[in-house]
Amino acid sequence: MSDPKIGNIFASIPRDKSSEVFEFLAGAGQVKIERIVSQGHTSPDSGWYDQDQNEWVMVVKGTAVITYDSGQDIRLQEGDYLNIPAHQKHKVSWTDPDTETLWLAVFY
Amino acid sequence: MSDPKIGNIFASIPRDKSSEVFEFLAGAGQVKIERIVSQGHTSPDSGWYDQDQNEWVMVVKGTAVITYDSGQDIRLQEGDYLNIPAHQKHKVSWTDPDTETLWLAVFY
Repeated sequence: MSDPKIGNIFASIPRDKSSEVFEFLAGAGQVKIERIVSQGHTSPDSGWYDQDQNEWVMVVKGTAVITYDSGQDIRLQEGDYLNIPAHQKHKVSWTDPDTETLWLAVFY
Repeated sequence: MSDPKIGNIFASIPRDKSSEVFEFLAGAGQVKIERIVSQGHTSPDSGWYDQDQNEWVMVVKGTAVITYDSGQDIRLQEGDYLNIPAHQKHKVSWTDPDTETLWLAVFY
């Protein structure tokens, strides 16, 4: 049998944090589970994310603010999760500049 | 607009831990994101889980052992994740009896 696909969400943090790092963890079809590492990044560079899929996101470590196009700021700390419906325009308007923020994101 | 659907994975731990507690967090169609709280539980009560869907599971807090029907034990600590393919027979053969184990599970 093949080895179990095991990993650790806190492991292998990239040293180069000049840009956000997206890592595919698992998925099939339209479903994608990703780890995202941010440090002081905002995204996208301009405008809003406007996605065809729902996104469930959890801050595993760190602190971040997601802003909706209504102007609403949603502050997320360790363990906080948020379900972002498809086509809810949003952006990551702040992440802690002093330490990495680890996200777990499920696109579905 | 409706309030953002926000929560915290560490919040609202059930006091009664006489059985495992499954909580739906988000999902659509065949996709389901769940929090599971275990403390000293093994599951299922007998036999194996044999699921039609893939399951990606992460231990958010605590310690657990998943056993495959090959006899392989997979020890999971905080932050460890495992992708369990559909129809990979498995069970939770141990969870820490002294503290709760929080799981995040994505069925896809």
